[in-house]
Amino acid sequence: MYTTLPPTGMRDFLPKEKEAREYVMREIRNEYKCSGFTEIETSFLENIENLTGGDGGENTKLIFKVLKRGEKLENADFNNLESLADLGLRFDLTLPLVRFYSNNRNELPVIFKAIQMGTVFRAERPQKGRYRAFTQCDIDIIGDASNLAEVEIIQTIASTLKRLSFKDFNIKLNDRRILKSLVTSAGFSEDDFSDIAIILDKMDKIGIEGIKKELAEKGYADTQIDQLLVHSAKLENEGLEGIKEICPEGYENVKQIMDVIKSLEDDFTITFDHTLVRGMGYYTSTIFEITYGNLGYAIAGGGRYDKMIGKISGVDVPAVGFSIGFERIVDLLISENKVTSTDEKIALIYSEQDALAQVVKAAIQMRANTAVVSLYQLKKKLGKQLKQLEKAGYTGYVLYSEHLEVKRFEV
Amino acid sequence: MYTTLPPTGMRDFLPKEKEAREYVMREIRNEYKCSGFTEIETSFLENIENLTGGDGGENTKLIFKVLKRGEKLENADFNNLESLADLGLRFDLTLPLVRFYSNNRNELPVIFKAIQMGTVFRAERPQKGRYRAFTQCDIDIIGDASNLAEVEIIQTIASTLKRLSFKDFNIKLNDRRILKSLVTSAGFSEDDFSDIAIILDKMDKIGIEGIKKELAEKGYADTQIDQLLVHSAKLENEGLEGIKEICPEGYENVKQIMDVIKSLEDDFTITFDHTLVRGMGYYTSTIFEITYGNLGYAIAGGGRYDKMIGKISGVDVPAVGFSIGFERIVDLLISENKVTSTDEKIALIYSEQDALAQVVKAAIQMRANTAVVSLYQLKKKLGKQLKQLEKAGYTGYVLYSEHLEVKRFEV
Repeated sequence: MYTTLPPTGMRDFLPKEKEAREYVMREIRNEYKCSGFTEIETSFLENIENLTGGDGGENTKLIFKVLKRGEKLENADFNNLESLADLGLRFDLTLPLVRFYSNNRNELPVIFKAIQMGTVFRAERPQKGRYRAFTQCDIDIIGDASNLAEVEIIQTIASTLKRLSFKDFNIKLNDRRILKSLVTSAGFSEDDFSDIAIILDKMDKIGIEGIKKELAEKGYADTQIDQLLVHSAKLENEGLEGIKEICPEGYENVKQIMDVIKSLEDDFTITFDHTLVRGMGYYTSTIFEITYGNLGYAIAGGGRYDKMIGKISGVDVPAVGFSIGFERIVDLLISENKVTSTDEKIALIYSEQDALAQVVKAAIQMRANTAVVSLYQLKKKLGKQLKQLEKAGYTGYVLYSEHLEVKRFEV
Repeated sequence: MYTTLPPTGMRDFLPKEKEAREYVMREIRNEYKCSGFTEIETSFLENIENLTGGDGGENTKLIFKVLKRGEKLENADFNNLESLADLGLRFDLTLPLVRFYSNNRNELPVIFKAIQMGTVFRAERPQKGRYRAFTQCDIDIIGDASNLAEVEIIQTIASTLKRLSFKDFNIKLNDRRILKSLVTSAGFSEDDFSDIAIILDKMDKIGIEGIKKELAEKGYADTQIDQLLVHSAKLENEGLEGIKEICPEGYENVKQIMDVIKSLEDDFTITFDHTLVRGMGYYTSTIFEITYGNLGYAIAGGGRYDKMIGKISGVDVPAVGFSIGFERIVDLLISENKVTSTDEKIALIYSEQDALAQVVKAAIQMRANTAVVSLYQLKKKLGKQLKQLEKAGYTGYVLYSEHLEVKRFEV
């Protein structure tokens, strides 16, 4: 059945919305570029094995899979649903970046600073505020093992948010190695780290008692759980200094990054947060997230993933990435009324008696000095027509004559 | 099996290619906007029935279909391949525009001038130069039955090509009603028009004799075929005037448009071409195409489709659209070396002894006056490092010190 709505969870964008989106995209792209990042683009579709086989975590359950075609479909094994699809829509930009880098390494600089801005797709259960197609704006630095990469990436994201008029946001910083030390020094096995990290990630939702309960339900020993919470409380009190002895390399890393960013003396803050976990399994050390105001979610997040490229290309290449949650940023900017166009937009109104060629020439001429000049034939009721034009975002109009006098709408 | 290549027929874009693509996108978008078009975005995925049911012609055979998920997939009828998919990737931007317009009509101006720029997907047989994902840059005017719409759309596309430094291109113009008159006045039934149009479309490939042969093979009478070719030859000799009596409304339409565009006295040409057919079945009158140099294909094409919106929304709304073949334009501009960045791009090189915070501050400061400033740590062999930077597109470098003196690479 034909339907005029976009599919469930998908969206169309009206001119006003699209203008806001394009404005935000442009600002982000320009700021990323200023800092020496260069943009690449990867395919929307990936071979299905690349998507299902890797480090995608929960996202691998949310793939939009593309049906095989022609003979391949006819020959597929219909008892095995897995064999029906050969392609899938990308669910993030990191997996494609790693594939791209592995494929093009010889063409790319030794330290590759990449921008990726594009739509990703996840077959989430439909619910309010969850989109099945959304835009991500990523930067990644591949090939730099030093934490200059973290500094650059954090500074670039902070500059970008400032350019978009965000102030007083907070950058939360942690290191997976610190988390791991906390867990192992409490007596847990290193193999249990991922499971425990998933539970620790819920700290701000379920609190210490909740964490305790969930760990106990998983069958971990009370002594270990208590020890973990004692360590955690110590960090809560002492901050970063509290980890210095248990995890010196994590301590040094976080301290160095924080010292540089703090010394920029800017109007945002950076804090160590030992409860920060970040979902993806591929992060190896530094992880970060940006929070803003009282929002219950991060507006940007990322971390270092030094082992992911090695898994594919056989050679470990260090990498660190940061992603801006584009949809959230756009929604915030629109709600705070911070995307308003100042472009002059003029309607050139002519009547049937006017020679069309002359009118078109006049429009071309006017466009040399005015952002937008659009032609409209005079309607019977000029007043009504002008109201429609104003509603459509025109800032003024010209009634075609030999003198092209612009009359601006009152604001 | 994991593979680092993009899927068959899909592409990734390296920084240089992406920069060219973004430059062309930006120029096209800006020129479209100058003429009063406003951009919208529609979903990449469409409900499968919308794609298969409509006016898509050959393209409906090339849909990438998305497998149903969860219970819906488990409950699908596996003996009916059609029932396995609920979504599909869009194969053009016109079908989605018509759906979008039908859904949002009340929110849109009476005469809606739309820009759409985005990727479309077609599961073409893989062959050289055929991509399965490619970008289209469309403008459409919906709600204007007068051929001012054609004039505006042609003028905007021509200005856009000029902005991209194309010269001496030719706009070919025809009217489906002229084609129809030719066919019916030769004695064919109007029902056969579509079939005959497909054959006529091959004129430049197979010539008059080829056309004759194919029509005969379809079983049409020799007298009708001969009559058609006599009419066609007449137009070949007399040009547009030759159609004045057989199809006055087509004649008037084409003449009016050509008169206005010609009077702009610009460095491109516009010609009537009675052999122009354009593939899509939905065109109702004016059709156009732009050719350039000796290329064997059009670089832009479009036409009027006054009946398509009515089929969906029940109310006929006149519409006309023009699409630039983005991939072809980018390839041409790159091959003619017409996309070169002039932005200053400076590498700020510092040594381990420098205080990182000071270096970062210097970079931020420099970015106020320079397009791109990127940080690099000094390597053991500066000469080699500088060569790499030059290769990566840097125009110069600064060795960090208190005096930030820029040294430019020789060009």
